[in-house]
Amino acid sequence: MQLRSGTERISEREETAVSIVVQKFGGSSVADAESIKRVAQRIVEYRQAGHEVVVVVSAMGDSTDELIDLAQQVSPLPPARELDMLLTAGERISMAVLAMAIANLGFEAQSFTGSQAGVITDEQFGKARIIDVTPGRIRSALDDGNIAIVAGFQGVSQTAKNITTLGRGGSDTTAVALAAALEADVCEIYTDVDGVFTADPRIVPSARKIDEIGYEEMMEMAASGAKVLMLRCVEYARRYNVPVHVRSSFSRKQGTWVTDSPIPEAFRPAQGSTALAAESETESTMEQAIISGVAHDRSEAKVTIVGVPDVPGKAAEIFKTVAAQEIDIDMIVQNISTREPGKTDISFTLPMTDGAKALEALDAAKDAIGFDQVRYDDQIGKLSVVGAGMRSHPGVTATLFEALSNAQVNIDMISTSEIRISVVTRVDLLDDAVRAAHAAYGLDSDQDEAVVYGGTGR
Amino acid sequence: MQLRSGTERISEREETAVSIVVQKFGGSSVADAESIKRVAQRIVEYRQAGHEVVVVVSAMGDSTDELIDLAQQVSPLPPARELDMLLTAGERISMAVLAMAIANLGFEAQSFTGSQAGVITDEQFGKARIIDVTPGRIRSALDDGNIAIVAGFQGVSQTAKNITTLGRGGSDTTAVALAAALEADVCEIYTDVDGVFTADPRIVPSARKIDEIGYEEMMEMAASGAKVLMLRCVEYARRYNVPVHVRSSFSRKQGTWVTDSPIPEAFRPAQGSTALAAESETESTMEQAIISGVAHDRSEAKVTIVGVPDVPGKAAEIFKTVAAQEIDIDMIVQNISTREPGKTDISFTLPMTDGAKALEALDAAKDAIGFDQVRYDDQIGKLSVVGAGMRSHPGVTATLFEALSNAQVNIDMISTSEIRISVVTRVDLLDDAVRAAHAAYGLDSDQDEAVVYGGTGR
Repeated sequence: MQLRSGTERISEREETAVSIVVQKFGGSSVADAESIKRVAQRIVEYRQAGHEVVVVVSAMGDSTDELIDLAQQVSPLPPARELDMLLTAGERISMAVLAMAIANLGFEAQSFTGSQAGVITDEQFGKARIIDVTPGRIRSALDDGNIAIVAGFQGVSQTAKNITTLGRGGSDTTAVALAAALEADVCEIYTDVDGVFTADPRIVPSARKIDEIGYEEMMEMAASGAKVLMLRCVEYARRYNVPVHVRSSFSRKQGTWVTDSPIPEAFRPAQGSTALAAESETESTMEQAIISGVAHDRSEAKVTIVGVPDVPGKAAEIFKTVAAQEIDIDMIVQNISTREPGKTDISFTLPMTDGAKALEALDAAKDAIGFDQVRYDDQIGKLSVVGAGMRSHPGVTATLFEALSNAQVNIDMISTSEIRISVVTRVDLLDDAVRAAHAAYGLDSDQDEAVVYGGTGR
Repeated sequence: MQLRSGTERISEREETAVSIVVQKFGGSSVADAESIKRVAQRIVEYRQAGHEVVVVVSAMGDSTDELIDLAQQVSPLPPARELDMLLTAGERISMAVLAMAIANLGFEAQSFTGSQAGVITDEQFGKARIIDVTPGRIRSALDDGNIAIVAGFQGVSQTAKNITTLGRGGSDTTAVALAAALEADVCEIYTDVDGVFTADPRIVPSARKIDEIGYEEMMEMAASGAKVLMLRCVEYARRYNVPVHVRSSFSRKQGTWVTDSPIPEAFRPAQGSTALAAESETESTMEQAIISGVAHDRSEAKVTIVGVPDVPGKAAEIFKTVAAQEIDIDMIVQNISTREPGKTDISFTLPMTDGAKALEALDAAKDAIGFDQVRYDDQIGKLSVVGAGMRSHPGVTATLFEALSNAQVNIDMISTSEIRISVVTRVDLLDDAVRAAHAAYGLDSDQDEAVVYGGTGR
């Protein structure tokens, strides 16, 4: 893969007439033959508009789950290499059928496995990382006038040439990686929602679709629980400056652009359309608001180590013990123990699914580290407010605390970054907390204006 | 693939202690998780006995048909490249699940696609021919102590590296081709019947299992409608002198050995077993009978071209017309026309599925060739008697004609080879004809002795 800076890449592409579009369709968009035909129609429209089109596709509907069920029937703990071999059959089916549906509309299409498309990975079966993309066959297929259909979620290991899968969010990552390697003008991620919202619309019905968001903010949203895009996919897009357009496969509306650059000319909403013009006005309002949205996460648990000797190195011992289990820790808080002098309490959050493993490891290390006890709490929720330049506007934090206080929500832990504040609350108060924060920052769609901090904006 | 003569190959292998066994399991043997577990158990027993085991597996049960249905839902005529890509998902699933089932029994197993196993083909999608087998990864897997599971029916094209399927009987051919390339001691074809029979037991209940049969006879049986093994697989076995053992996946009984050489020592039926000793006696009786069996075929139709000008080159024009449609012609008969002097009638048989295509092509060429009309008859059946040295024993043909005459079966067409006589009859008389011929040659299991022609035998 040729690595170039985003600026170079974009200016070079502007000189050429043809745009390269990478489109990714998830499992729900290709759940059955009818959906596949509808997707084929949509793809063909891009080809007719003169674009070169590369499509990344997931397995049909629930077929991956069905394959996992089948594996479980013969083996409670199937070997990871074989599980990856099995699961990659899912995209092989959807991509071939999609290519057939496109051919049936009179257009040339060729499907390619991850391996054929040059998606080279390491050999961590089930959660492989992409280490290179060599899309020579895809480039040739495009040169021959074909629409290229690529299996998402899968690759081939560099040395042993074994088939791998990329794990959660893998198909999105395949799409962004191919877009980067092909120097595509845009990577469209089609999904079953209209885009990225200022909060989960199931919790906050007045949440608004975000029209444009920067990579950093999107990364924080994804890391904080927004499920539309996976963090690794956004990281990849940021590293190679790939403009990502998250949108619905069930409508023609503009979705959410994830980019730090202007939206490419060819893909900007038409100015003539009244609907889009109205949307565009909302968009400019949104651009000035510094708060992107409110994310939430119910998937974490809190571990508290009580009575840790307050001497240097003890915290390191604790986190080394947890890290040895390959567990990612999120928020960390340390307080002087109120019960016993010379001792301290350390709390941290981690994915609930890793809870048992962490407790076991800590228990084994208890005497060596010398703490008193471990407490485990999986009834927590995390709320995160994400927005640019937050650290330099103290009012942002104050607004959050005031809103939560008014909503009778107690705060258990706090952590902040340049563009994010996260708080941990009781899980049964999380929805109230999200609604309160969303309203306090003026993000509700029935509010006239978003709250703007600092001197810029209007 | 290193080509060597059969003798060299066998003598070399006898010096080494380890035997290589290639086992092929068809779709009905791996129809569901339970069947797969049973097959895994059987495979593991061979590994435990010290053999190196390579398993070739078809898609589970009806899954290939289900994939074809899915394709039909999006396209009435799916592109051949994409159909092959789609269908190869079937074996990918079965082979990975089988590898998991073996791992669950505590043995190491790795699955390989056709491409990974080095099955190199031409690029006739849907009916690719194997042009080379480079089983380096399989050999390495065996060296590492693994059981290797290989997807049957599929390969990769030599130049363009596209995924291909081998068409009907493809998995058997994969197994024999791998056995040849790996210089295996035996290629076991597991199926849902006990072996090759002297006739179809559904028609002739007294048909006997053939214990041993030569390649030539088996080729004639396969070409004449015996469905247990496909012709191309037997041709391949003969060319590379691969001993093939066709047997049931539902019993432990010896099946039918297809080979021109003695059965390899390690795989001969144990002499201690009474059941096998009894079987073995039947076997030696069978070896002396020159008639291997009676095959039948209901899949052909007869085309008669009426009133062909009796001048040189006309027959060639007709068969060139048909051949241009890539249709394989089987039997051909030419008679002087009884109606018109200077004209002749030409009849031939062809696969019923190619009937419409042939008629269309002939119709288009009617004026150019100058015949009167084409008749089409799909109510025919073909009966073939196969046995070694038949041509030099005129009594064989006489026995057939007498038996059919006694059974009131009229003969429509006749063709013969060194080791086969085939006749075409009305399809509704075919079963009677098969039973009559089977009895006439003394093949019924309740008959004391098979009829032996010529001076050898008893």
